[in-house]
Amino acid sequence: MLNRTYETQNCSVARALEVVGERWSLLIVRDLMLGYRRFDELHERLGVARNVLAARLERLADEGVIEKALYQERPARYEYHLTEKGRDLWPVIVGLLSWGDRYLTGGAPPVVLEHRECGGLVNDRRICERCGAELGVREAIARPGPGAKKARGRLVPAGRVQPGK
Amino acid sequence: MLNRTYETQNCSVARALEVVGERWSLLIVRDLMLGYRRFDELHERLGVARNVLAARLERLADEGVIEKALYQERPARYEYHLTEKGRDLWPVIVGLLSWGDRYLTGGAPPVVLEHRECGGLVNDRRICERCGAELGVREAIARPGPGAKKARGRLVPAGRVQPGK
Repeated sequence: MLNRTYETQNCSVARALEVVGERWSLLIVRDLMLGYRRFDELHERLGVARNVLAARLERLADEGVIEKALYQERPARYEYHLTEKGRDLWPVIVGLLSWGDRYLTGGAPPVVLEHRECGGLVNDRRICERCGAELGVREAIARPGPGAKKARGRLVPAGRVQPGK
Repeated sequence: MLNRTYETQNCSVARALEVVGERWSLLIVRDLMLGYRRFDELHERLGVARNVLAARLERLADEGVIEKALYQERPARYEYHLTEKGRDLWPVIVGLLSWGDRYLTGGAPPVVLEHRECGGLVNDRRICERCGAELGVREAIARPGPGAKKARGRLVPAGRVQPGK
């Protein structure tokens, strides 16, 4: 198994990747930002093995990126919420999204981010191109873009609301 | 071995992570942004096995993120340069850096980014906090921050120039 740490590195980029650099971790954070909260939803969207998903959620919780909340008692079922630390990963997600859009989608982004209040597009500095506001994750909404396509009968990714808590 | 693709995902974040999400890839990009260009420099800084480093460089070149340039003929030696596609990963690096600084350094960032022209700090939207300019990677410089420490006799990371080509 690959080592997850970068021990020789005195660098915040390396430290950050130790926490969220494992396969699937940033896609879990992305889906939580899109408003998916339950294990089965995440499992369905990601198509990752259940034990891997469980291990990633456990680690993100240990690191304070997400927290579990009981939503059903018998049997016990949990939802997963981003903490402030988790929501603060939004710039990383937007950075990857913008870069992927530019170079890897053939000009047809599957998702566009809009400023919830005015409908302007969110640029790669997380600034609204219409009104100029500097946006946080809760002020943006993801909508299907020109490259969105039907998968399993519904638009993926759906234009779900951004995380509240 | 882990699969590197996320086949079920119609998402630019997933596509981006397929290209740069493997262990070490983003740290290689970071080091190229800091001005380190040669295999042995990268190997020394990263402390990664030579065959892994070679594989990552090969893949980043295949994806058009970096390109090789011959700098010595006998024996053949290459430098690695970021392409425009590679330099456009700067927002991702800054996102990880800012998040790591905020949550994982105990308030003492190893590195600070400054606007080359006016010396202002670069914030997490890549905007100069002093003059307000929206910055690209070539307009910023990395300097040792309060959390920098000596390693192997020199400041790590060094305040090397940002990539030219």
